[in-house]
Amino acid sequence: MKIAVLGTGMVGETLGSKLIQLGHEVIMGSRSKNNDKASAWVQKSGSLASQGTFADAAAAGELILNCTLGSASLEALTQAGEANLAGKILWDLSNPLDFSKGMPPSLFVSNTDSLGEQIQRAFPSVRVVKTLNTINCNLMVDAASLPGDHTLFLCGNDAEAKSASRDLISAWFGWRDIIDLGDITASRATESYLHLWLRLWGALKTPQFNLHIVRR
Amino acid sequence: MKIAVLGTGMVGETLGSKLIQLGHEVIMGSRSKNNDKASAWVQKSGSLASQGTFADAAAAGELILNCTLGSASLEALTQAGEANLAGKILWDLSNPLDFSKGMPPSLFVSNTDSLGEQIQRAFPSVRVVKTLNTINCNLMVDAASLPGDHTLFLCGNDAEAKSASRDLISAWFGWRDIIDLGDITASRATESYLHLWLRLWGALKTPQFNLHIVRR
Repeated sequence: MKIAVLGTGMVGETLGSKLIQLGHEVIMGSRSKNNDKASAWVQKSGSLASQGTFADAAAAGELILNCTLGSASLEALTQAGEANLAGKILWDLSNPLDFSKGMPPSLFVSNTDSLGEQIQRAFPSVRVVKTLNTINCNLMVDAASLPGDHTLFLCGNDAEAKSASRDLISAWFGWRDIIDLGDITASRATESYLHLWLRLWGALKTPQFNLHIVRR
Repeated sequence: MKIAVLGTGMVGETLGSKLIQLGHEVIMGSRSKNNDKASAWVQKSGSLASQGTFADAAAAGELILNCTLGSASLEALTQAGEANLAGKILWDLSNPLDFSKGMPPSLFVSNTDSLGEQIQRAFPSVRVVKTLNTINCNLMVDAASLPGDHTLFLCGNDAEAKSASRDLISAWFGWRDIIDLGDITASRATESYLHLWLRLWGALKTPQFNLHIVRR
């Protein structure tokens, strides 16, 4: 599959590298055609890797991964262009973290709205699936790297997009316990969980943890 | 121990009944000296149970449990009176649920503040421990009613109060995995988790679940 990874940070690089390793073509999108971090990543990743603008990546990708910072996501997707994204599945991995009010960060949208919803509203023709935003990126791509049962969430308005995404996430990254929380408004739930995630990071002194939803 | 349970709802009744069963004296506090629900509970609970105003309960209790609705907590504690609460450990089980904007509820304080913090600020001489607010009340009092390992959180500014609370919660209700999230500002984390808890309730069709923090 041809996959667009939007964002050159640690999340984008980790996801991109895992997908290359699985044999997919990955185009990393950023603000400019020749981004230094994207170039370095392409160089070390071999012939399945390429880079381009957000629009180049969105046009080429059959599946779009939003790995940009939450504060940059709407602008990045605007640059990607709705025409290039229309009808495609977009995994929104971002979180609306606001670092301006001290640590741990707060959220710049929360409670009665969410970044997932803002993205879906801004790009109505895109099939947004909010997922993978509740764990560290190393864990995202390798569920088994943390022993034991633990849970991943997804939500979105398009049932078919969620079903396809669940299958891919399971096949690619080894996730077995994936809970569908409902429509895109459930982004409020997984984004708000970041408050707890950040405090747990502080208490446990490692980001290599996850929650398992224990039920009968 | 003599324990004040503030609130006559399902949470207060469940906690009160469990504590009576464990041999403690419980005084249920409410707005009035003769509350119908409190009277009915006292009647069925035997000689260790009594009722009174919030102030009566707070004055008598060595440990205070805030089981009132989040929207009523500050007013209930004001009626209880800081003099009656001073120096005592108060378990804040409440959540700032706002039902005025549709279902699932949102929070009337969140993100950069929390109800736990509001209570601690309003009653600085009280040793507030935020805990037990992330699970259904039947599970609160009997961790083993949900098989498997799962996690409870606490936070607060007073280390000794947290340590004593951890011991009591473990001894009384069978909780083994209790994570200290830090000072009272971590109430933002467990209160914000309600967003996820409520969506999970919807997805799983039962409130009898909990999260287990899986870590190495």
